[in-house]
Amino acid sequence: MTKLKWGMVGGGEGSQIGPAHRLGAQADGLFEFAAGALDHRAEAGRAYAQRLGIAADRAYGDWQEMLADEKGRADRVDLVTVATPNSTHFEITKAFLEAGFNVLCEKPMTLNVEEGEEIVRVAKASGKICAVNYCYSAYPMVRQARAMVRAGELGKIRLIVTNFSHGHHGDATDADNPRVRWRYDPAMAGVSGQFADCGIHAMHMASFISGNTVEKLSADFASTIASRQLEDDAMVNFRMSGGTVGRLWTSSVAIGRQHGFDIQVFGETGGLRWASEQPNQLIYTPVGGRTQIIEKGEGGLHEDAKRLSRVSIAHPEGFPLAVANIYCDLADAIRGTARDGLPTAEDGLRSMAAVYAAVASAKEDGAWQDARPPMFR
Amino acid sequence: MTKLKWGMVGGGEGSQIGPAHRLGAQADGLFEFAAGALDHRAEAGRAYAQRLGIAADRAYGDWQEMLADEKGRADRVDLVTVATPNSTHFEITKAFLEAGFNVLCEKPMTLNVEEGEEIVRVAKASGKICAVNYCYSAYPMVRQARAMVRAGELGKIRLIVTNFSHGHHGDATDADNPRVRWRYDPAMAGVSGQFADCGIHAMHMASFISGNTVEKLSADFASTIASRQLEDDAMVNFRMSGGTVGRLWTSSVAIGRQHGFDIQVFGETGGLRWASEQPNQLIYTPVGGRTQIIEKGEGGLHEDAKRLSRVSIAHPEGFPLAVANIYCDLADAIRGTARDGLPTAEDGLRSMAAVYAAVASAKEDGAWQDARPPMFR
Amino acid sequence: MTKLKWGMVGGGEGSQIGPAHRLGAQADGLFEFAAGALDHRAEAGRAYAQRLGIAADRAYGDWQEMLADEKGRADRVDLVTVATPNSTHFEITKAFLEAGFNVLCEKPMTLNVEEGEEIVRVAKASGKICAVNYCYSAYPMVRQARAMVRAGELGKIRLIVTNFSHGHHGDATDADNPRVRWRYDPAMAGVSGQFADCGIHAMHMASFISGNTVEKLSADFASTIASRQLEDDAMVNFRMSGGTVGRLWTSSVAIGRQHGFDIQVFGETGGLRWASEQPNQLIYTPVGGRTQIIEKGEGGLHEDAKRLSRVSIAHPEGFPLAVANIYCDLADAIRGTARDGLPTAEDGLRSMAAVYAAVASAKEDGAWQDARPPMFR
Amino acid sequence: MTKLKWGMVGGGEGSQIGPAHRLGAQADGLFEFAAGALDHRAEAGRAYAQRLGIAADRAYGDWQEMLADEKGRADRVDLVTVATPNSTHFEITKAFLEAGFNVLCEKPMTLNVEEGEEIVRVAKASGKICAVNYCYSAYPMVRQARAMVRAGELGKIRLIVTNFSHGHHGDATDADNPRVRWRYDPAMAGVSGQFADCGIHAMHMASFISGNTVEKLSADFASTIASRQLEDDAMVNFRMSGGTVGRLWTSSVAIGRQHGFDIQVFGETGGLRWASEQPNQLIYTPVGGRTQIIEKGEGGLHEDAKRLSRVSIAHPEGFPLAVANIYCDLADAIRGTARDGLPTAEDGLRSMAAVYAAVASAKEDGAWQDARPPMFR
Repeated sequence: MTKLKWGMVGGGEGSQIGPAHRLGAQADGLFEFAAGALDHRAEAGRAYAQRLGIAADRAYGDWQEMLADEKGRADRVDLVTVATPNSTHFEITKAFLEAGFNVLCEKPMTLNVEEGEEIVRVAKASGKICAVNYCYSAYPMVRQARAMVRAGELGKIRLIVTNFSHGHHGDATDADNPRVRWRYDPAMAGVSGQFADCGIHAMHMASFISGNTVEKLSADFASTIASRQLEDDAMVNFRMSGGTVGRLWTSSVAIGRQHGFDIQVFGETGGLRWASEQPNQLIYTPVGGRTQIIEKGEGGLHEDAKRLSRVSIAHPEGFPLAVANIYCDLADAIRGTARDGLPTAEDGLRSMAAVYAAVASAKEDGAWQDARPPMFR
Repeated sequence: MTKLKWGMVGGGEGSQIGPAHRLGAQADGLFEFAAGALDHRAEAGRAYAQRLGIAADRAYGDWQEMLADEKGRADRVDLVTVATPNSTHFEITKAFLEAGFNVLCEKPMTLNVEEGEEIVRVAKASGKICAVNYCYSAYPMVRQARAMVRAGELGKIRLIVTNFSHGHHGDATDADNPRVRWRYDPAMAGVSGQFADCGIHAMHMASFISGNTVEKLSADFASTIASRQLEDDAMVNFRMSGGTVGRLWTSSVAIGRQHGFDIQVFGETGGLRWASEQPNQLIYTPVGGRTQIIEKGEGGLHEDAKRLSRVSIAHPEGFPLAVANIYCDLADAIRGTARDGLPTAEDGLRSMAAVYAAVASAKEDGAWQDARPPMFR
Repeated sequence: MTKLKWGMVGGGEGSQIGPAHRLGAQADGLFEFAAGALDHRAEAGRAYAQRLGIAADRAYGDWQEMLADEKGRADRVDLVTVATPNSTHFEITKAFLEAGFNVLCEKPMTLNVEEGEEIVRVAKASGKICAVNYCYSAYPMVRQARAMVRAGELGKIRLIVTNFSHGHHGDATDADNPRVRWRYDPAMAGVSGQFADCGIHAMHMASFISGNTVEKLSADFASTIASRQLEDDAMVNFRMSGGTVGRLWTSSVAIGRQHGFDIQVFGETGGLRWASEQPNQLIYTPVGGRTQIIEKGEGGLHEDAKRLSRVSIAHPEGFPLAVANIYCDLADAIRGTARDGLPTAEDGLRSMAAVYAAVASAKEDGAWQDARPPMFR
Repeated sequence: MTKLKWGMVGGGEGSQIGPAHRLGAQADGLFEFAAGALDHRAEAGRAYAQRLGIAADRAYGDWQEMLADEKGRADRVDLVTVATPNSTHFEITKAFLEAGFNVLCEKPMTLNVEEGEEIVRVAKASGKICAVNYCYSAYPMVRQARAMVRAGELGKIRLIVTNFSHGHHGDATDADNPRVRWRYDPAMAGVSGQFADCGIHAMHMASFISGNTVEKLSADFASTIASRQLEDDAMVNFRMSGGTVGRLWTSSVAIGRQHGFDIQVFGETGGLRWASEQPNQLIYTPVGGRTQIIEKGEGGLHEDAKRLSRVSIAHPEGFPLAVANIYCDLADAIRGTARDGLPTAEDGLRSMAAVYAAVASAKEDGAWQDARPPMFR
């Protein structure tokens, strides 16, 4: 099977996200890194792309150049990953979709709801894939959770409780560090800090596993370090289609938590727990029964959990291979096997609608807000 | 040192709480079980008390008889534990206090705020001890947490996140079981279900460790099993004196959680985590440092953590000895050594004010409510 | 039910073990502390006993005096606990048994095999109970493990792996501290250090759960701190009746382990794991199935696990109540309900035979030794 | 930087190990998969290689053909991975080394000590790299452990306790399954079953972290399923250079353990614990201090731990990327940056010497054996 051709916008030298995408795309030998506009400094980007093995004529100075050239090539890239600063996601994603490319966009897909709706419309019109990198959803045991819920193994889902909290911005003496400060500055981060940065992963997961969408929410935001304009801690209560109650806590001042993303799903006939720091186990309790540990790689898992695991039971697989799983699903989708677990533009849009609803609610002392994008109301 | 004399109202044959108090009072040899009105069926109570070793003339048929007789005795009991059904706590506690007895009342101390304020006034006027059995606060490592916070080891407390969730009422096919059903029936349980039953332990703990009181709150209640009138799941956001942000989740439908009471305390210079299912460890992370495990019994603990532990490091001590620690503090207090960790009538009152504020908030879609008892506003 | 009368030899002021026994005997209100010879300093012992509430005429100066007086009393104690220094256990236990008292002896029951056999003979001849305080065996979930094995739920037991390791003697700069040093000095500790101190608990547990006895063993001893004459680390391989393979590691220089006593039992159709630092859970895996967490207090436990638990599921019970469970079984046994889980003089003897076999094996480079007491060969 | 050229012998369609090596070599974009003799069925191997993207003229029918052709090419592969059945490792590895290729050989490197010594000699004479795939040693936190020990942070290492136990061969009803049976059949597996299969990983790790070599050992083997000729459970006590005491348990009948590879290292001034099922944490306790959790990605780690981690703190990295780390070190070594953590032919030889010593010891009832290869005595 010949490799698919892959290009990236952003992810230049020194970025954290570039290596993650390169590993994700190449780990399973599915994609060849064929083109890139990796840096806003044109020459630096061209040179770095070539050092990474991209041919000189596809090592572009900017994304416009890349778009213009690639769309005319017979061997144009099959997929473009957009890993640029957040404020540029909309424009680049839209342009590549309109030119007929498949796109994987980093989160957040856009900065507001209107742009999100536009991407959904453009993606639909283009007939191309527009995926968003909610990569936690591609862990095998998250797929197992989703498959169990969809197979009715937990009955109707009553309640979802999810947290995404860390303490890495908890040091007030480090709050003016530019690497930290921009996240709480509306001029740079937009309307929300911690909720938009981490919370939306947790909210996406609630929908991803349950199959229900978020309909309304109430939020309580706090800036526990006084100099911050945006929230560094948030609690969001929500209600989902089907009546599921949701509770989501996210924080960046929870000193001692490293990357505390976990989710608990409680249904009529059982409960599940998954945590991103121990991603290879899923904890399951049938109502009236004992808690069981479901292991990645054990016999009898649902198909998606099997398919997205590479090594046998109790050999841990981690975050980079969750990203790689997104690329596995993309490769399949590009080749014509639709993968219903792949997060899409619609997911990106729903996140943005939730962010704006949460910000509005927090400003109004927790008044409940419609969290659905207007186009889905 | 001669034992103190102890009496109990309630806790008759077959109750769960009676044995816990008997063990708590007697484990350390501090109290002699001298008197009791153990059952609302007078003869059964008298007989059971005598089987437990109480002399016939102090094995009473009801609490009124016990009160009348004991107050006239030279060797009257030094402490009365009130372990009767919730609706009777107020009346009995008040009567014994007014007669000059020290009282340990089971939680909830009263059914409403007005009665709570009355107990606070009566206790103050009597000059006697009125304690409430928030026994989780007496675990050695909870005392260590409190002492660390009070010594400033975490700096100002920014955020407290606490959960008290279990799944034992999650089986809808068991919801009509009378043992379960009464908890969600306003006629029997009052204004609140799960929050009043478990949530107030968590809310007390937030105040107990931080030293701050709850000032206002916003609540989201859910009855995830449709037949229930009262909530089986609740989220409460709150603000404390000193500006601490609080978040409290409590549930009885969290299938797979057994007794998930835990608390995380995040300050300017560190974070703590304690969980009731592993009560002998306290997890501590200094800002910028590594997570450490503080063990009951290790060298250098704060005085209260040392004092309330009986066996050496890594020999677990559990729930019954946390109850016993309440009795240790009571014995000291009765003998004149005030123990500032002992939960008091004021704590019982504050819980009731929080319950009513939460119920009001939940009814008004989460509108924030003053959570302070009127007498402390 | 009137309380049984209980006396103790040893356990004077400042000892660790005295309070553990007092709590164990009194926690459930089964025993009244009626007599004691608590200290080798006669006056100190008498005074302390009286401060603990013992009548002056039963606050004895030494055990001979206690024996002489008690055996003539109509209200003689029903049980004598021997909690004196190891070298005196044999003499005192034997004397009380011969005078017709029930005895609970601290471990090790004797200092050598011959004395152990003598106690077994004397106990048998007396018709009285001679128990040895292998208290870990009285945890509810250990009883559950034993009951599961005996009910055949794991099939034939192939393999037992147990550890009892801590690091509290790992600091070489503290090695001359008298509190530590005596344990590795043959003049004071006898033929074995860490194996005799902790290892025999683990070896007893292997027999206790499996119902098999240790037949032969091979030992590797090490003194990792050079100044020590006796071992501070030992590995013992053994074979049990029924063909079970055993592996036991014990250490006092395992820095970072607090009280690492755990046991894994592997049979034809399942495996179990129990750990003393989390004693309220038993981890069970049926062959070909998922790992399950069995909780103290859950429905459907075996009778012994139910009987020896005081509070409901997920309320931890710890070490002091395991000791109390020994006293519960003793009270039943004294009243005529034989409790087959109660560790006996035979267990004490088998431990001593294992210690001597291990010492001999270690001296002969691991040559296998018969580990059975001569009287059971 | 142009990619290095990489070839593989073995790892054909359906093998588990082939994909692991392909991912390991390609994940970081360091190697291009340029040549292969992937299957003992020549045509199947050629076809599969081409489906994986190898050019037709480098898709070989057998390793001899590959060797003959590659050694004459200007663009010959920079590295050959040998992932064939165990009995062929020696011959293939030797041939490629002698022809001047760098080799990564799967474990066990050879079937006996004599062959192992031959590989060491050939590798030395060739001046080429001969690495062996002890991939667990390449986890970042294992490298951190090694660096801490080497920096003296634990003082002299007194004791190492390591386990590699699972229960996947514990079902006697499955024992005749050919996939399981060959491992316990001397005709197919050689002189040792579980110890040679898993135990040598643990023994290598003891040397890898401590820097000490195994000098002598005593083994106890058991075949707990009667039909097995080779051991399915083994305990090995050993002594290392520098006086370190070692204890190693390995089992394949430990039902409920999945992949229980862990190691504890105890020195004069601290202890460490690492477990392969939670590979991103290292548990550290300084003598007299509290247990700390060292996280992959935290500030201040040793260089090797930093270098071999791809994503930030608390994003787990798992087994496939540990294999990739071996390839990272190989790429560096090929380019001239020697990596002292890379496991070499000497490690492969020492493992074989330990296997033969353990087999001999087990046959002689645990008599201690010299475990050093003759050439290093």
